[in-house]
Amino acid sequence: MQDMVRVAVDAMGGDHAPDEIIKGTVDAVNAQQNIFCYLVGKQEVIEPKLKAYSYPADRIEIVNATEKIETAEPPVNAIRKKKDSSIVVALKMVKEEKADAFVSAGSSGAVLVGGQVIVGKIRGIERAPLAPLIPTEKGMSLLIDCGANVDARSSHLVQFAQMGSIYMESVMGIKNPTVAIVNIGAEEEKGNALVKETYPLLQECENINFIGNIEAREIPHGGADVIVCEAFTGNVILKLYEGIGAVMLGAIKKGLMATVKSKIGALLIKSSLKKTLKQFDASQYGGAPLLGLKGLVVKTHGSSKAKEVMNSIIQCQTFKKQNVNQKIKDQLGKER
Amino acid sequence: MQDMVRVAVDAMGGDHAPDEIIKGTVDAVNAQQNIFCYLVGKQEVIEPKLKAYSYPADRIEIVNATEKIETAEPPVNAIRKKKDSSIVVALKMVKEEKADAFVSAGSSGAVLVGGQVIVGKIRGIERAPLAPLIPTEKGMSLLIDCGANVDARSSHLVQFAQMGSIYMESVMGIKNPTVAIVNIGAEEEKGNALVKETYPLLQECENINFIGNIEAREIPHGGADVIVCEAFTGNVILKLYEGIGAVMLGAIKKGLMATVKSKIGALLIKSSLKKTLKQFDASQYGGAPLLGLKGLVVKTHGSSKAKEVMNSIIQCQTFKKQNVNQKIKDQLGKER
Repeated sequence: MQDMVRVAVDAMGGDHAPDEIIKGTVDAVNAQQNIFCYLVGKQEVIEPKLKAYSYPADRIEIVNATEKIETAEPPVNAIRKKKDSSIVVALKMVKEEKADAFVSAGSSGAVLVGGQVIVGKIRGIERAPLAPLIPTEKGMSLLIDCGANVDARSSHLVQFAQMGSIYMESVMGIKNPTVAIVNIGAEEEKGNALVKETYPLLQECENINFIGNIEAREIPHGGADVIVCEAFTGNVILKLYEGIGAVMLGAIKKGLMATVKSKIGALLIKSSLKKTLKQFDASQYGGAPLLGLKGLVVKTHGSSKAKEVMNSIIQCQTFKKQNVNQKIKDQLGKER
Repeated sequence: MQDMVRVAVDAMGGDHAPDEIIKGTVDAVNAQQNIFCYLVGKQEVIEPKLKAYSYPADRIEIVNATEKIETAEPPVNAIRKKKDSSIVVALKMVKEEKADAFVSAGSSGAVLVGGQVIVGKIRGIERAPLAPLIPTEKGMSLLIDCGANVDARSSHLVQFAQMGSIYMESVMGIKNPTVAIVNIGAEEEKGNALVKETYPLLQECENINFIGNIEAREIPHGGADVIVCEAFTGNVILKLYEGIGAVMLGAIKKGLMATVKSKIGALLIKSSLKKTLKQFDASQYGGAPLLGLKGLVVKTHGSSKAKEVMNSIIQCQTFKKQNVNQKIKDQLGKER
């Protein structure tokens, strides 16, 4: 039981909730012995759906929460008012250490605000960044911060670099991960005020493997393991990644359907192309952790299906096993 | 002769200079009757290469410039010291109205700095943004600013929106172009301090068709004709566009070569795929103008080949014919 990781899952959040969330939760406990899940949400909705599956009954428990925070709701207000929402109830379970982690495909804003307000930051951490993995030519990189905390300061970015390094080393198993800061040129003297101020601080930082600036062009080539930037830039990078990928694939598919010849060709390349595209499929990596909190909060895509939910839940295991929060506390935290 | 547009071309700038620049210049005057080009650079290098081509001899003239600014040189210094460089000599020709426009594939920094310092901004224009066209699902959008002027103010962004609208309407022929500001959410209240401050100013701005925020995800889908952002964000968007495109294509090509079956399929889809990819080929649009200057300065990719050089030169015609600078002066300029 000590090795068991207890994950509170937001059964009501995301485009495909609750069906795909419930399925992903069942898949996770069926896939791994040491996962226990709380499905948090409207009991009368979850219960009949869950009954349709077969799974070890002692490893999924429904926790009733009668309200639901919608994506469009202003997050601060929603967290304050909807005390019985799945997000607030689940985050409280993490705070009270009834759960080790919280996984949600629901409102990003509410998860980010709630994580900081309810679970709380580790003492000494100035900001809790959202850090998704993005696919690259070489594998994947951690993009930190993609959250909602815009207008960051240089001290925040230094902490992002440190927490990102700990995550990539502990959870993703990358030894001495390279760290770079997003800039508009490779030269040290380039950049906006924030980057210029942060650069020398990262150079001085002893517990990271800082390799300098990275231009956005090099990100998809896998130019660094940890890509540091403030949240506005991170958001632009993350969403442009999704947008360009979708548009290019759409155009290629359309092109393949243009002639009889190309249609036959398309049949022949289908399986090879699928393998290639899988490499760029973010869902295999699970969700993005909100780092620097007293517990683990993981945000998965709003469009998550069962597979991504399952991977997000499984990911919580490594996070706990590797004592990521303890490592962050040891390196960056301040004792009371 | 009045309709003739006189373009000073930087024969020494870019990865493929001078050969591809000379070829592109010859192609431009051969393609269009009313283009006159100055090839600015080392005469002894240009002359023998130019002689290999056939073209109307009275429409290309070599202007000797003995120095060359390298891409790695700090731009401010280079512009100040290398008085006989192709960039400085050509920009002076624009300033002295011997040429209507300058086209360069050379050092971005030197072209941007030189354009502002030598040619000078239209009175009333606070900053001269670099505004490339980027390919989208629907055609193309203008991304403004991608220059080197980071840490912009809201008043700059409002001028970018206005100048971008004039350019898209006059040069690209898009009636009442839509304008959006890059943000991390579609809602009005989201964003960093700069965007929040700029948003209401754009709403009040009468001579543009402002449609609100645009998330980076929507840019490749063609969400707006004019995409307004400060230069750091613009640079990230532009370079990520290039990077993701290159990596995805590389991966797809590699995938197609994986099996015998896929190789045969690849042969059948080749022509359809080429057509699709052409849609995302930035070279067909020519270069990016530096807007708001007293003359026209166009920066093309450092990797430009003859086709992109030719298109950049031809583009200068429309700019002059449509009196873009006069329109900018009328709408944004201040009389002495």
